[in-house]
Amino acid sequence: MLRLARLAIDTWREPVAYLHRRCPECNAESFLGPRKVEVSGGGRSVTCALNVVDDAALVAPDALALSPHAFDLLGLAEGEAVSIRRAPEPASRPALRARIAGRRLSAAEIDAVVEDMVAGRYAARETAGFLVAAAQTLDDDEVIAFTRARAERSAKVSWPREIVVDKHSMGGIPGTRVTMVVIPIVVAHGLTIPKAASRAITSPAGTADAMEVLARVDLDAGEVRRAVDEVGGCIVWNGKLSHSPIDDVMNAVTRPLGIVSDRLSVSSILSKKAALGVTHIVFDIPVGPTAKVASRAEAEELARLFVVTAEGLGIDVRCEITDGTQPIGRGVGPALEARDVMKVLANDADAPSDLRDKALMLAARVLDFDGVAEPRERAETLLRSGAAAKAMERLIDAQGRNPAPPGPGALTREVAAARGGTVASIDCYRISGIARRAGAPMEKSAGLDLFKQRGDAVEAGEPLYRIHAAEQADLAEAAGYAERDSGFEIAAG
Amino acid sequence: MLRLARLAIDTWREPVAYLHRRCPECNAESFLGPRKVEVSGGGRSVTCALNVVDDAALVAPDALALSPHAFDLLGLAEGEAVSIRRAPEPASRPALRARIAGRRLSAAEIDAVVEDMVAGRYAARETAGFLVAAAQTLDDDEVIAFTRARAERSAKVSWPREIVVDKHSMGGIPGTRVTMVVIPIVVAHGLTIPKAASRAITSPAGTADAMEVLARVDLDAGEVRRAVDEVGGCIVWNGKLSHSPIDDVMNAVTRPLGIVSDRLSVSSILSKKAALGVTHIVFDIPVGPTAKVASRAEAEELARLFVVTAEGLGIDVRCEITDGTQPIGRGVGPALEARDVMKVLANDADAPSDLRDKALMLAARVLDFDGVAEPRERAETLLRSGAAAKAMERLIDAQGRNPAPPGPGALTREVAAARGGTVASIDCYRISGIARRAGAPMEKSAGLDLFKQRGDAVEAGEPLYRIHAAEQADLAEAAGYAERDSGFEIAAG
Repeated sequence: MLRLARLAIDTWREPVAYLHRRCPECNAESFLGPRKVEVSGGGRSVTCALNVVDDAALVAPDALALSPHAFDLLGLAEGEAVSIRRAPEPASRPALRARIAGRRLSAAEIDAVVEDMVAGRYAARETAGFLVAAAQTLDDDEVIAFTRARAERSAKVSWPREIVVDKHSMGGIPGTRVTMVVIPIVVAHGLTIPKAASRAITSPAGTADAMEVLARVDLDAGEVRRAVDEVGGCIVWNGKLSHSPIDDVMNAVTRPLGIVSDRLSVSSILSKKAALGVTHIVFDIPVGPTAKVASRAEAEELARLFVVTAEGLGIDVRCEITDGTQPIGRGVGPALEARDVMKVLANDADAPSDLRDKALMLAARVLDFDGVAEPRERAETLLRSGAAAKAMERLIDAQGRNPAPPGPGALTREVAAARGGTVASIDCYRISGIARRAGAPMEKSAGLDLFKQRGDAVEAGEPLYRIHAAEQADLAEAAGYAERDSGFEIAAG
Repeated sequence: MLRLARLAIDTWREPVAYLHRRCPECNAESFLGPRKVEVSGGGRSVTCALNVVDDAALVAPDALALSPHAFDLLGLAEGEAVSIRRAPEPASRPALRARIAGRRLSAAEIDAVVEDMVAGRYAARETAGFLVAAAQTLDDDEVIAFTRARAERSAKVSWPREIVVDKHSMGGIPGTRVTMVVIPIVVAHGLTIPKAASRAITSPAGTADAMEVLARVDLDAGEVRRAVDEVGGCIVWNGKLSHSPIDDVMNAVTRPLGIVSDRLSVSSILSKKAALGVTHIVFDIPVGPTAKVASRAEAEELARLFVVTAEGLGIDVRCEITDGTQPIGRGVGPALEARDVMKVLANDADAPSDLRDKALMLAARVLDFDGVAEPRERAETLLRSGAAAKAMERLIDAQGRNPAPPGPGALTREVAAARGGTVASIDCYRISGIARRAGAPMEKSAGLDLFKQRGDAVEAGEPLYRIHAAEQADLAEAAGYAERDSGFEIAAG
């Protein structure tokens, strides 16, 4: 047995164990190599890389030191007795290798591979090999098994309801805060809809960023449970909910490798829905050159995969393939998008009608799950009567109202058309880039207010949109970027 | 600038740099993460992982410490001034990611990926992702480009000859030392044939192991050059020749992942041939249930890939698809195989005729490259006249004769047929396993002497083969293993 010590070397996410080369208890050098070691004590253990130390001032010969991260994972005190051995080989390795070689795996094999991945038993090259093979060739049954294996290892929520609904958009279009209109309508109707939304990664705002303008969104599972019990729904950030431990392992591989795969996306999304106790989902799949899904054919294959996989998990799914060629609504950026949403809910004459229409269509699809005879009329009634607006206020209060919600940034600059004509197209990447340079999403008030849509006539010098920012430097940077290319293509005529 | 220090922590093959968290020169924490850092000084640099230290006794705040391996790679003295920056991204990463996503790469892109891999700029997960994708889907042009990129980064040999020939077997069949008969015939004819052969990895003997019974085989490039200049050929171990640095990088991924791929094999084999200056090659592709190639269809696809890829490199290739269902020759194990070879070369009446026939067929194919009118007759003449045997003696002398070549091991045990009948099949895996338990290939004298071939009649109790060993324990283990399953299937009748 060795004496546990803590060595103040931050090795980032890699747990590392340190042995002195002349350790009298074991042959320290024999542990050097690509295989990890398992350090155990008091019924607990941690899997680490091993380093060998030649200086007793760093690690005493009778000690086993751990990096702070590994030390915390093991959870024992300094001086306690620990032992070391080679980490056992992952039992699922034959299955992993077979999958790389192209053989389909059974559900049990996939579950075992996921288990070993989550436990950190695979080297990065093995995880990468599996995911590259999987991204290209998992068949439907394998996607179902993979999704189930992931869901079973996530923190689970269950609801005392027969129907728990959700609405999910594949996104990629700036603006387009449909969710924040749909949820209040569904809540007003009386269905349970615990919506866990994402923050922006590369866009100017995610649903969670826009909702945060109005209310707290970083609720934990207990807080979500209380909010949903109280009002029937929520619009919260997914970061503290249904965390799937395999996502960390997978993202460390798929992101640097740029792996984009319907199969992996569907599995990731549906595993989170299953963990959150959702029984019925409407998927919105916008199609456009800058949306996540570029063609109708891709959208149809993605929809098929959602339906088949969800069915395998006992979840009822409908998919709507929608127009993703331009922003919906006028605001781009958290506060500007929240403003659009509140105008729609308030039945403001100036509310963006495209946002209202799309939200009503999707809300109707959700209400359809409840057997409503005329779901579109029902959704319209709930919106027009102010019931949806009242539901939104209840959601805001249940989550924790922001006492001073920020409005659009006070520093503004208008970007005008260089020539007259008709708006032929809007480059969503460019619009996102300009809004982000203005400060979105970190600066809630930053973003763009769009004045024109595709097909609108413009005159030379007429403003296309207004940039909002909170800092002069951000405004200048966004304006400079917009001047080089406004993102609007104007066709003569 | 920081002061270079050396920290006595052996991190195995991973170069690691250590900074104090309160380093006044740079934000140490900002370097934490999956990306590596580049430490530079005196015109030299080394790429490392970074750890952050919280104890000034380990690393002073104004110092940058390196693990011993990284310190040696940089090659500067303690106290010298060094700087640190994030390691530049590999320039070929967009190509690598595109290939993982399924896009075909140009020759220039493949060359750039190989360059960055050899330089260690990719993480293991990236190399793994690329190779898993490549193993399944490289097209012919990509295999050619990949092979060329590998060959160009290997140590090159060139010969002042228009034709430099080679003979290569895909192997997998125990015994079968055809190469050691073919090379002397070709040398006797007068063609140049610098044969670099492998040692056994999982088999009881590689050509290099069997040749080593007679002569030194661990020649370096200069020694090979002298031997070939002197006698026109050689049969040496490939371990010290045409080392391809990317093989190390690739093997670290393909072996643990169990990747088996014609495309990667062809690329590896032909890149070594190209580096060795070979212009014409005969490939022998044995087909059998325990050979490397299991079916005729696979063999034909492999042959096609050899021909197409070699053509792209300007190498002339012929492929022979041969019977790989049973051992050829009688000996299995280095000394026993060398004995068969020398009997064939000596025109001994007792020489295995199957070994003689296959060697003559392949030698004739090689001589065909020289425009010989009747190559089979020419090969037979060179063998029958003793010219091939004399050439073998010259090869042995040029490489360095073993003054006391070991014969078959003195400890023997015969394994008899449990029943009478006809030999229906011979399990090559089992035969290899028995020979290895007897001590082959490390013990040159160990192995099997086979008395029966497929189709031969046997009586109950008649010996099928004799096990040879140098140690009683090895003999007992091999005999016990053979008793459970002799590897011979005897059909009644």
